[in-house]
Amino acid sequence: MAAQQVADRRDIDFVLFDQFDAESLTGHAVYADFNRKTFEMVINEARKFALKEILPTYALGDREGVRFDQGRVTPPSCFRRPFELFRDGEWGALAEDPKVGGQGLPYLISHAAGEYLIGTNFAFSSYAMLGHGCGKMIELYGTERQKTLFMKNLYNGTWSGTMLLTEPEAGSDVGALTTSAKRNDDGTWSLSGSKIFITSGDHDLTENIIHPVLARTEGAPPGSKGISIFLVPKVWVNEDGSLGEPNDIVCTGIEEKMGLHGSATCSMSLGSSGACRGLLLGEENKGMRIMFTMMNEARLGVGIQAFSHASAAYLHALDYARTRKQGRAIEEALDPTAPSVYIIDHPDIRRMLLEMKCCVDGMRSFAYYIALLMDHHRVSSDPEERENTDDLVGLLTPILKTYNSMKGYEACIKAIQVYGGAGYIRDYPVEQIARDCKIASIYEGTDGIQAMDLLARKLGMKKGRVFMELLGRMNQTIERASDSSATLPFTETASTLVNRLGECAMAIGTALLSGELRKSFAHSVPFLEIMGDAIIAWMLLWRAATADEKIKKGAKKKDLSFLEGQIKGAEFFFTNQLPVTFGKMDALMALGDAAVTMDDKSFGG
Amino acid sequence: MAAQQVADRRDIDFVLFDQFDAESLTGHAVYADFNRKTFEMVINEARKFALKEILPTYALGDREGVRFDQGRVTPPSCFRRPFELFRDGEWGALAEDPKVGGQGLPYLISHAAGEYLIGTNFAFSSYAMLGHGCGKMIELYGTERQKTLFMKNLYNGTWSGTMLLTEPEAGSDVGALTTSAKRNDDGTWSLSGSKIFITSGDHDLTENIIHPVLARTEGAPPGSKGISIFLVPKVWVNEDGSLGEPNDIVCTGIEEKMGLHGSATCSMSLGSSGACRGLLLGEENKGMRIMFTMMNEARLGVGIQAFSHASAAYLHALDYARTRKQGRAIEEALDPTAPSVYIIDHPDIRRMLLEMKCCVDGMRSFAYYIALLMDHHRVSSDPEERENTDDLVGLLTPILKTYNSMKGYEACIKAIQVYGGAGYIRDYPVEQIARDCKIASIYEGTDGIQAMDLLARKLGMKKGRVFMELLGRMNQTIERASDSSATLPFTETASTLVNRLGECAMAIGTALLSGELRKSFAHSVPFLEIMGDAIIAWMLLWRAATADEKIKKGAKKKDLSFLEGQIKGAEFFFTNQLPVTFGKMDALMALGDAAVTMDDKSFGG
Repeated sequence: MAAQQVADRRDIDFVLFDQFDAESLTGHAVYADFNRKTFEMVINEARKFALKEILPTYALGDREGVRFDQGRVTPPSCFRRPFELFRDGEWGALAEDPKVGGQGLPYLISHAAGEYLIGTNFAFSSYAMLGHGCGKMIELYGTERQKTLFMKNLYNGTWSGTMLLTEPEAGSDVGALTTSAKRNDDGTWSLSGSKIFITSGDHDLTENIIHPVLARTEGAPPGSKGISIFLVPKVWVNEDGSLGEPNDIVCTGIEEKMGLHGSATCSMSLGSSGACRGLLLGEENKGMRIMFTMMNEARLGVGIQAFSHASAAYLHALDYARTRKQGRAIEEALDPTAPSVYIIDHPDIRRMLLEMKCCVDGMRSFAYYIALLMDHHRVSSDPEERENTDDLVGLLTPILKTYNSMKGYEACIKAIQVYGGAGYIRDYPVEQIARDCKIASIYEGTDGIQAMDLLARKLGMKKGRVFMELLGRMNQTIERASDSSATLPFTETASTLVNRLGECAMAIGTALLSGELRKSFAHSVPFLEIMGDAIIAWMLLWRAATADEKIKKGAKKKDLSFLEGQIKGAEFFFTNQLPVTFGKMDALMALGDAAVTMDDKSFGG
Repeated sequence: MAAQQVADRRDIDFVLFDQFDAESLTGHAVYADFNRKTFEMVINEARKFALKEILPTYALGDREGVRFDQGRVTPPSCFRRPFELFRDGEWGALAEDPKVGGQGLPYLISHAAGEYLIGTNFAFSSYAMLGHGCGKMIELYGTERQKTLFMKNLYNGTWSGTMLLTEPEAGSDVGALTTSAKRNDDGTWSLSGSKIFITSGDHDLTENIIHPVLARTEGAPPGSKGISIFLVPKVWVNEDGSLGEPNDIVCTGIEEKMGLHGSATCSMSLGSSGACRGLLLGEENKGMRIMFTMMNEARLGVGIQAFSHASAAYLHALDYARTRKQGRAIEEALDPTAPSVYIIDHPDIRRMLLEMKCCVDGMRSFAYYIALLMDHHRVSSDPEERENTDDLVGLLTPILKTYNSMKGYEACIKAIQVYGGAGYIRDYPVEQIARDCKIASIYEGTDGIQAMDLLARKLGMKKGRVFMELLGRMNQTIERASDSSATLPFTETASTLVNRLGECAMAIGTALLSGELRKSFAHSVPFLEIMGDAIIAWMLLWRAATADEKIKKGAKKKDLSFLEGQIKGAEFFFTNQLPVTFGKMDALMALGDAAVTMDDKSFGG
């Protein structure tokens, strides 16, 4: 068994307390009840719970899968116990206000705990964690009555939640959905339609499930401006909070998938053979905006999910490389009598491990940085700071979601490579981790959708000022890195990177604004990838500078190799990987249009 | 159903007859009995057979999987009929001499047919096609008696074959194996040991299976120099060719894998409870050299397998993009009343499709080019030409195997992205194609092992003359492309590419020769990838020049969009992708050593 599983605890602490100074948050009133010790305790408990109760369900849940029988959905039986413990431990709403049923923790700490809670077995977490987003929508947009009826039970995990957007003909194009809602005399609404790809759409882990459903009211305008959102409980909730009759919202089938076999992906039918009643959430035709509250949270969650898969895959691969003997040291490769070595000794294994480490470390810092921004937004009384941090979260969300999904998956595949033949078989965990991870690039908006969001909505926010704020923050880190002899050598490349990132944004943004829509969108995913690379470089430089400062201040001997690893990671990324990013920038700046000018028939087939 | 499945027939013809002038092969005595028509007929028949008989087993075989029960291995039942038809159609030895049971076809045509025979369902092909390599070893190294007893039955598919190398403690390090062989008084050998990961190690599709087994004789030197190879039949073959007693070589279990569920991956036990008799093939202690005959063939086969997966994935994705409506044209994105469009209209979908197309087209030409070299080797009477072509095949084999596996897998993953949510579920074929493809980077030597072969053995062959010959051939294509107005714009970049490829080889080769072993091997996979990129660029340029010549000569109207697609493909690769390759070259030239100088502990965990 590896020393560390799922996530590297020491690295979490390093990011929280050294890179991002989580302790300083306790100086603000809202977090004044906490201190470093309580933060650590929460993460310790999350880790203990995840490793002891969730981790044993990982392979088991994949093999058992979900059963669907006569309209009833049964998750893997091994999920039941950790689900109850998760609920009883109140792990579902760590960063929410205690007044509404949360724990009042900083987002930063909640994210760190989330690595264990989400990353240990996402098929499990999919049942346990979607209720939160649903609760959040109700907290922000619901009536007092709706809050009383639903919110707390969602936050505390008594009930679970879903998200009913997708229909067979309305996937990425949510605005094309046709599920309808008709107002009843009693003020409730009758829903009718079909939805697909609904995560945790049905199961028997909770006595009720609250479904936020996107639908159209009569006479609503076409497209996304005519969409409203309704709360449709699986079992009707009476005015006094007691459960009433079952609603006619039923699962008609589940998907067989590449991975996440333990997670129920349901087709749902609403009102096909009885009454399916719901309550309007917020105003009519404002459903998309409300849903985006949940969606943005879900997108950040996917970013964490994907990187957690990568983190787990890395730790497994590292452990395997340290315990599997095969071949001889490269200098003795031709001497058959030389002793076998652990495969971590082989240069190509080390290259793969270091690529994975840079990816995982960088993504962890990136994910936590967004949480830090959310905390700064929460604690700040300065309107400019509040606006800045909120905007930055908006800019960074599609990048975190997409980049972590793409690169996280690549890291999982590298883990398979480190294992060799063992990586392809089910006796070892990495093939499952890769299968589970793949969905991250697809759901809650594919890579392509996210890149359109980045290019069309986020890049130009406030005339590009938000993007410039990001570059400014990168430059601050470069300045800090210039003060340290260990990181000074990287700063010139880093400055070039930031400048060229600005040029790329200008080039693609200008093409977009001058109406070259097709050409610019043909480069939107590569542009997002470039932004992600730059952010990882930024985070690794920040880590290296932080580590070097700690070393200079006289770090403990037992921490030295870890801290030196931060500097080596930056060195590797800046020397071995950033030249490739610069190549991607060259390709972007050329703004080739072959993909969009090519005749459809020329694709062959 | 898509117009083209598995492989694009028109593209196959283009590569065979336009790019590589397969017809000219018929001018040589050995192929004089054939003409273009007979070549086309063979491919037509292979295609027909594959699509009609093998393709329907693809999803079916994956779902049914292999059963293992009390030592008996049962492949998916749907494999039986196509297996018998494959055998009766004598598809297993197309390029072998008719004298030994083959069809006498050029390798080029055999490769083209192989796209359909291998690429339609590799889980199926794994049973049908391994006998050939075993037969080849016997043809080259066996005694007349062994040829009589085994070879023909292997070539014609009456019996099947395997390859017993790997042991639990001897995977990539084949030389560490411990299976032993002891000479019996009658000249046979008694084998004893265990093997793992044996493809088609047991099954009931043929009445006999011939196992080439790597083992050590008593007193053999350590390492790979002490390895001999034995032919161990599942059922003993009497002197008169009749079947005798079952041999004690039994399957003790099969692996559950990420993909290729229909292919039996067996653990084998030899002589654990009875006599396991074998015949020595070739000389004692020369087993590795003999096995490499089979291994090199297998490596080329994996290169074809991986690219076939990518080809199939591309055609599926293309078909889906042409038939799935979602969203509106980008110019009308904000108008909800605008009509839906097929997703091939979306710029990012086109980018992905064109990336896949370049990858698949380039890999097809690359794979066929190796077959062409093999044909030139076979037909040539010029010793220099024979040596050159053989050397080039040696240099290119690890690149084809590895690059096609890496990039082929990436293309499969892109196909999933094109499908979106549908790509992740089993109702659509692409998730299975990706799962099946992943093994290609692992078996018959991982990417890392291949890259070591390239750097340590192949790059320096004949003092680098083989590598220089390759660059020379690239330059010939550039020269030809300079004559065409359509391809002239790419030639400057292409020349830079070839020059810089030479510089990269020099840099990494010099580091290796000067004893910087660890540093150079830490860049061996990136170097292989650079070589692969350059070869794809070369092939796409060659295709574009060929297409432009055809257009200039007045191509038929119905061929125009296909031919223009060749030029667009080259434009895309040169504009959008080669800058990234140049970035990889910059990274290589820097020869960073962070991965190998980093302390083991600094990896964390």
